[in-house]
Amino acid sequence: MTYKLDAFQDMVEAFKLFPGIGTKTAERMAIFLLKSPLNKTQQFAQTLVTSKTRIRPCLECYLFTEEEICSICQDEKRDRGLICVIEEAKDALMIEKSVSFHGLYHVLMGKLSPLDGVGPENLKVESLLERVRKLKVREVILATGTDVEGEATALYLGELLEEENISVTRIAYGLPVGMGLDYADELTLARALEARRAL
Amino acid sequence: MTYKLDAFQDMVEAFKLFPGIGTKTAERMAIFLLKSPLNKTQQFAQTLVTSKTRIRPCLECYLFTEEEICSICQDEKRDRGLICVIEEAKDALMIEKSVSFHGLYHVLMGKLSPLDGVGPENLKVESLLERVRKLKVREVILATGTDVEGEATALYLGELLEEENISVTRIAYGLPVGMGLDYADELTLARALEARRAL
Repeated sequence: MTYKLDAFQDMVEAFKLFPGIGTKTAERMAIFLLKSPLNKTQQFAQTLVTSKTRIRPCLECYLFTEEEICSICQDEKRDRGLICVIEEAKDALMIEKSVSFHGLYHVLMGKLSPLDGVGPENLKVESLLERVRKLKVREVILATGTDVEGEATALYLGELLEEENISVTRIAYGLPVGMGLDYADELTLARALEARRAL
Repeated sequence: MTYKLDAFQDMVEAFKLFPGIGTKTAERMAIFLLKSPLNKTQQFAQTLVTSKTRIRPCLECYLFTEEEICSICQDEKRDRGLICVIEEAKDALMIEKSVSFHGLYHVLMGKLSPLDGVGPENLKVESLLERVRKLKVREVILATGTDVEGEATALYLGELLEEENISVTRIAYGLPVGMGLDYADELTLARALEARRAL
């Protein structure tokens, strides 16, 4: 190919670093910038860097925040007796969207993964126990993922929290809403049957 | 929702400016940056701005280039008697990928669109005629789009180039490769039948 455009390829490669962005989409995004005036690219770049600089972990729960303490930890209306444990701060964004949880969060900042050398000491476990005691929490919901590491993390925390004499729950397994049975895998189906409820 | 994160929303909105990037993808991309160290965001932003700054239109054909004259116009091996007319510089990226064209390009930088106030004087038509004469071109391939404006532009250029006593061709209509007949629209199907060839 005679037509080489390193600067374009650099852009495409930069976009391809994002999860779920393949070559086609990366090319479309780079082409969009090529077609736009320079100041649009500068503005876009500036927005990302500024936003990223403004965001840091909450000193209490490690959620993303632009202040010292996040708006959820500051909110007097949230239920302080209920803590939802999640792997990553981003998980809270999704749970908040569902508008079905009114307690506080605690971000582990990862999940147990012996193969990657991630043990309990690498996660925010110690501070979870401290908060549970300080806030006199009555229930901890373990909302780690349903993959092997997420399960192991939930199991580990469950045993640890048992000693605190509080209620420890795990988010429900089941079918995603709006999905036909034929699309579900057997394991999910088995769990959904097991956890059936009276209508 | 108690959990507001303006900086995150700013990022999401920035990503959503790109064509084909919806809220879900924009959120995933923003979350990826939130999870990565700050210098990764800075690097990404820098790559885009630097690349964009390096790229400008070729003085001959208006393709994207990092020099005065693009690598295609400079390449002695390309067929200088053959010019492919395209709407946007990005179109050349796709044609080059197909490795089926060995002439030069000419970017119109738009298409005729009376409703948007785009007439021939807003396109690189004058310089196309100059190049056709200067390079003693024997064939011009009109590769503008197959939408109404693209067709009108091709028609207009076809009439204009008729006076130059050269061969003027239009890219073929037909079925996209790898597509079943049932997915084609009637107009495409009609054109594909019309342009049928002996096996």
